Amino acid sequence: MSEASDTVVGLWKAMEARDWSALEGLLAPAFRAEFPQSGERFDREGYLRLNREYPGDWHIRLSSIVDGTECVVTEVEVDIDGRTERAVSFFHVREGKVTVLREYWPEPFAVPEWRRDLALRE
Amino acid sequence: MSEASDTVVGLWKAMEARDWSALEGLLAPAFRAEFPQSGERFDREGYLRLNREYPGDWHIRLSSIVDGTECVVTEVEVDIDGRTERAVSFFHVREGKVTVLREYWPEPFAVPEWRRDLALRE
Repeated sequence: MSEASDTVVGLWKAMEARDWSALEGLLAPAFRAEFPQSGERFDREGYLRLNREYPGDWHIRLSSIVDGTECVVTEVEVDIDGRTERAVSFFHVREGKVTVLREYWPEPFAVPEWRRDLALRE
Repeated sequence: MSEASDTVVGLWKAMEARDWSALEGLLAPAFRAEFPQSGERFDREGYLRLNREYPGDWHIRLSSIVDGTECVVTEVEVDIDGRTERAVSFFHVREGKVTVLREYWPEPFAVPEWRRDLALRE
């Protein structure tokens, strides 16, 4: 794994452990997070507060990691209070610190009626 | 760009052009697509029908591409009948053909009440 991947794996471990000082140490001072679905943007302090103050208990499983030259992408499954959510996260990493995080939280959806017969059944 | 990235860019161009024979040529015979949000899985024929039969006109903008060793990830914005949707797609590519596609369609969401004061305002 690259140093960038190590940083991202470390971030998810710090998040799982609620180790806020480790998390802070992995974020660049000019860190920015963006949630395109809500339009929310956070600086480092806001992102740390977002996680510290999140109402609910969670457990994180890292299900895939794609290591590009300039960007690392992860898929995680997060068990929160009895439900499971998924996140897809794009991390830009420089010198061992995350500079930019763009993150999606795709929700389940019902199969549209018009394509009920197109999917595989097995 | 790698050959895998070329394949993925070609796939989005074929999709934008509704060039179904070009699209078919970029999918491996054992191609599988998966939409984790709905649990739908498609083989090559089902995926081609899904796109050919999709009810609506679309225009696709490729907004980012991350080229990992084994996987290429893209973010696209898709204008469909006056609204804009986003997709995040994980492509596994072998010998110039897509073997596996795992795709998410994250929907907009409202800012949760508890964190209204945490995001940046500028």
